[in-house]
This record gives sequence, structure tokens and C-alpha cells, in this order.
Amino acid sequence: MLTPVSLAAPQRVDIALGERSYPILIGAGLLDHPASFEAVPKAASALIVTNTTVGPLYTAALQKALTGRFAAIHVLELPDGEAHKDWTTLNRIFDALLGHGCDRKTVLFALGGGVVGDMTGFAAASYMRGVPFVQVPTTLLAQVDSSVGGKTAINHPLGKNMIGAFYQPQMVLCDLATLKTLPPRELSAGLAEVIKYGPIYDMAFFEWIEANLPALRAQEPAALAHAVRRSCEIKAEVVGQDERENGLRAILNFGHTFGHAIESALGYGEWLHGEAVGCGMVMAAQLSQRLGGVDSAFVQRLTTLIEKAGLPVVAPRFGAERYLELMRIDKKSEGGEIRFVVIDKPGSAVMRPAPDAMVREVLAACGAA
Amino acid sequence: MLTPVSLAAPQRVDIALGERSYPILIGAGLLDHPASFEAVPKAASALIVTNTTVGPLYTAALQKALTGRFAAIHVLELPDGEAHKDWTTLNRIFDALLGHGCDRKTVLFALGGGVVGDMTGFAAASYMRGVPFVQVPTTLLAQVDSSVGGKTAINHPLGKNMIGAFYQPQMVLCDLATLKTLPPRELSAGLAEVIKYGPIYDMAFFEWIEANLPALRAQEPAALAHAVRRSCEIKAEVVGQDERENGLRAILNFGHTFGHAIESALGYGEWLHGEAVGCGMVMAAQLSQRLGGVDSAFVQRLTTLIEKAGLPVVAPRFGAERYLELMRIDKKSEGGEIRFVVIDKPGSAVMRPAPDAMVREVLAACGAA
Repeated sequence: MLTPVSLAAPQRVDIALGERSYPILIGAGLLDHPASFEAVPKAASALIVTNTTVGPLYTAALQKALTGRFAAIHVLELPDGEAHKDWTTLNRIFDALLGHGCDRKTVLFALGGGVVGDMTGFAAASYMRGVPFVQVPTTLLAQVDSSVGGKTAINHPLGKNMIGAFYQPQMVLCDLATLKTLPPRELSAGLAEVIKYGPIYDMAFFEWIEANLPALRAQEPAALAHAVRRSCEIKAEVVGQDERENGLRAILNFGHTFGHAIESALGYGEWLHGEAVGCGMVMAAQLSQRLGGVDSAFVQRLTTLIEKAGLPVVAPRFGAERYLELMRIDKKSEGGEIRFVVIDKPGSAVMRPAPDAMVREVLAACGAA
Repeated sequence: MLTPVSLAAPQRVDIALGERSYPILIGAGLLDHPASFEAVPKAASALIVTNTTVGPLYTAALQKALTGRFAAIHVLELPDGEAHKDWTTLNRIFDALLGHGCDRKTVLFALGGGVVGDMTGFAAASYMRGVPFVQVPTTLLAQVDSSVGGKTAINHPLGKNMIGAFYQPQMVLCDLATLKTLPPRELSAGLAEVIKYGPIYDMAFFEWIEANLPALRAQEPAALAHAVRRSCEIKAEVVGQDERENGLRAILNFGHTFGHAIESALGYGEWLHGEAVGCGMVMAAQLSQRLGGVDSAFVQRLTTLIEKAGLPVVAPRFGAERYLELMRIDKKSEGGEIRFVVIDKPGSAVMRPAPDAMVREVLAACGAA
């Protein structure tokens, strides 16, 4: 079932959104080559936004590849981690842009994981009411999910990703070579979002992940390449149909309602986003079973895969009330009613409300209450 | 030349932007009537954002008119003035939205002048990546300019309106009755933006303003009604052709490059925005003359009208270097080159760079240097 991916030539997946369409390029060593950036508009200046972990590894190579497209290439290193995905850190991007005299043609580059991508994207959406930006994701999670589709945001003390914009990049450049430096914990977190595409959209891909999990955890290039490409294809199909999440796109949040509550209750950054989503998928599968969409064998199969991926499957115990309170301010809630993404049959997901009593059962079954 | 406007039935001007189209309703007493809001989506909750000056005058009436469309109608009063158009104040809107458990269907109402409208619009653009909002402008300036066309923003210490979004409201409701409580200084500030539409687009309207200036300054309802309607019509025509200011729309910034520099140099709120634009138009007209677009008689005629409208025509003396430095970070600048909106013939405007030496002459001629 594994279609071999040549690591020499980049693969291309297109996000079809009319005048906001753009390509995802997938390959090893892409960020070293000026040719990778041929579709990016030339301008007087560029700003590379990265963090203190990723910056030392890849900034110099990216700067070199961009020389010739921009007269001035500025760099801003932000502190690493979800705890910094806030206004204070975002404002450092605006300070840098204005301090360097950047204008409406300046191109921003997000070099890093999901936090860097979300903040740089929102800064690009808002600076002078919108400047071009390019995603250069360096984590598995960002390559398979957060860098694709134009969701940008920062956190608010009362809720995750509450302040942001739908704003599409000019291009996403997934350089598989950057995954070599990814710590195992970050790799597992990324696998959560890879696994997600199975139960909601493609059970054949789910089976492939089950068969190739050891290769993925061993960071075998061909396995990672296929996981990134298939994930991007599915995300492109979904986002192309529903850019602003009026319907279908919400299925990509499978596991995220429970997961965001975990992140919020623990404090941002305690668990990685992917870890919270992994555990959240177990909880959402339990809820799906109670709503009649899947059987207990399916729940067990998904739970086993998540656990084997190195992700938590038991929720932190904060009590049902705290979880319910946090989930009521989820973006999918309406009029105080929590709406969950649940599996209605393997490979297909829908949004459903659920009785509080049923949610309490799930929370108890998963260790949360 | 004055087309009589009935004050009994609202006038309607449409902004044609495909799926983002919306109406501007113009009339006296509109905010008292539930029927004015029939096009606004119903939802569990609404948030009225206003300021401490306007709130006590109109919040109760608006709340009453909205009862029946929303189960809960929350109110947030912000401090008044351009000095508060910053992140700290914006964040109070997010705090209120999250504190009240507002969701993606919640409708925001901007009840006030340009500052309230710009901040509420940007909050609506960003809260949960976008919620619906309605502009209820209560100043002449907001009714003829800032509430129409979807430009939203906050200021940054290094530049005005540097952080924001293009985000269209569901509706703009210009209640002419609110202009009765407008202080003369605010009325004059609004007249600056009314006058603007003449030299850039419609010299017949310019002549009408010249003939009716006493009636406008005396706040005669029929004169104000015509000024608001014609201004909205022109803005609608321009914005309908160029929503995101890739070209034509920039002409609406006539006088604003000089004006923003004045506001920034003096400190936001020292002069009203309209006052800075009034003086900025005199400067831009001087520049237009030097570039050959208009003659000295035209410059004198425009200057006279601006002065008779109660607006400053002599710029604060900060020296040429300070002005040039501030204008280089204007959003229309590119690669460090300032691009000015100038009149190429009466009733028509274009964007042009200008030699620094010529700009210095203009600054000296207008008292700035």
C-alpha cells in the first residue's frame, strides 16, 4: 500500500482555493535550494520568524537560499513552546517588522513548528492588514497539519486559538530532512495528527499507519514521506471544500475538543498539542461508541495504535465539571452546547452534540473524572 | 444640486462585494427600530461595544431594538479616543467575549465613532477567526468613511493602523439623529472626509459642499443626509472595485500620508483624525500642484473650503526629517519610497512618488518645517 516517494524530486500537493490556491512541496533538503522558492514573490525585504531551538539549526541555510530574492533578510528568534503563543510574543513580530521598516510587499517565513507557524501566519494576516507569508514547517505535526490550510491564531488565557484569522500562505515547504533532528516526543506528537486522518477519512491509510508504525517511529525517510504526503492530500481535499470551517472542515478537529480542554487545564505547553490530541481521540472514540458510530473493537484498535505511537491514552484527572466548563468555550460550541467530532462509521466523521451525562461517562472511563 | 432625502424612510446604499456584500442604511432614528436590524443574523448573544461618551446616549435604545434577536445582549464601554486604539483596549473586547461565553454566532455591534468601529471590527475579524459584526457609526466621520468598506485596525507605537484586517460588516446603520449630539469639533473632523471625495472623485459634489457648508456646519438634517449618502455612494463605488486596496482604493487616502504623520508626531488623539486629514489635504494639494496636476487657484479653493469647515490648514512644526521618517513607514510606502495620493486633475487622483526635495518644499510651505 506504500507508494514509493522519490526523495530526490519534490512531491507537490495543491490546495485549491481559487485565487488563494497554493502548493505544498514535500521533499528532503528543499530549504537548502533557491529553486524551492521560485514561486515566492520577490521583494525588498523578508523576515524569517523562528524559535531558539530550530533557528540555530536551519536559519543560515534558509537565509542563503533566499539571497537573491530579497535585498534584506531579517531574522527574529522567539522563545520555544506553546506557552509563548500569546499576544506578548506576537507583538515582537510586529515590533521587528516596523523596526526594520518592512512594507506591504515584505514576505514572512515561518521556520519551525506549529507555534511559530500559527503566530507568524497571524502576524502576516494582520501586519498592514495582510502581507505574504511562507510556511517552512520543521516538525511532523506542522508538516501534516498545522502549516496547511490557513488557520492562524494565538491563545487567550481563557481559551486556545481564540484570536486569529483564516489566512493562506503563498506556499508550504515540507523539508523532510528537518525531521531527522526531531526529538522522539515531538515525533509522537506529530503522529497523533497523522493517525487522525484514518478514522475520520481513510481507513486504508489507517491500516498503512498500523503496518508502518515501527518504520515511522524509527524515522525511516520513505515512511515519513508517505505519511506527510497522504496527510497533506487529505487535508487539501477537506480544506478545498470548506476553507472557513462552515461544515466539513470541522472533522479535522477530531480529538481536539477533549484535547484543548486538557491543554488548557494543564497549562499550555505541559503536554504537547499532539499528546493532548492523541488522548483526546481516545475520548472522542469512546463517545463515538456510545453514540453508536463504532464498536468497542474499533475503540480498542484506535487506542492501541495511539498508545503504540508513544502517546498518552489516559486523561489527566481534573474532574468532569472542569472539563465540561472548558469544552463549553470551544469554538465549535453554539449557545453553550458542546459539539463534538465523532466517528459515525470507520473512515467518516460528523459533528454531534452529546448529553452531559454521556460525556461524564466518557470522562470517567478515560481517567479524567 | 441637492437631491432631497426623505428623513422618514431610510436610504440604502449597497456595497457590492460578492458574498461579502452588505447594505448601508441611512436615516434618522434608525437605531430605535427593531426593523432596522432585520438583515442581522439571530443568535444566542450579542455584544455592543461602545465608549464612555456615546454609550450613555444610545446604548439603551440599541439594546431595546435588539431584544428579540438575541437572548443575551452584553455591553462593553471602552475609554474614548484615538489614544486607546491599541492592543490593551482591544484585548478588553476579547476578555468580554470569552467572559460571557460568546461563540462563533455572536454578533458584535460597534456603537460609536471611528475608533470604536476600527477596534470592534478587528475584534470581530479575529475572535474565533471571525464572527459577524454591525457598524452603528455615531459620528459624521465614521458615517461617511471609516465604518464603510471593511478596514479595521489598531495602532502600534511606531505607526497608525499598522495591525488590522480587511473584514466586512453585515450592515452599516447610519442614524442621522445621532449627529445632533456631535460636538462642533467632531463635526468639522467629519467634514474633512466629506470634502475629500470632491477633489479625488466628484467635483460636482465638491461644488455642492462649497454651497452648503453653512448648512452642514449648522447641522441641518437634509444637508447632512445628502453629504452622508453621496459620500457612502462614492466610497461604495471605489471599494466595490478594489476591496483590498491593490490599486484604486488608495485614492481614499488623499491627505492621509501627511495626516498620519501629524497624528503620530503629535501623539494620537492630540488632533482628531479628521483634523489631521484636513491639514494633510492642504499639503497633498500643494504637492499635486508641484507635480503639475492642479493649479494654484485649485489649491487655494480647497484650502479655503477646509479652513471654512473649521479645520487646521497649517501643519505642526516638527521639521522635515521627522515628517519624512514617519511617512516612510506609511502602508503605501514600498522599499522605503513614499507614495502619495495626489490630484492629477480636479476630480481625479493617482498614487505617485515625489522627490524628497519637493516634499521638503511642501512641508516648508505648510508650516511643518
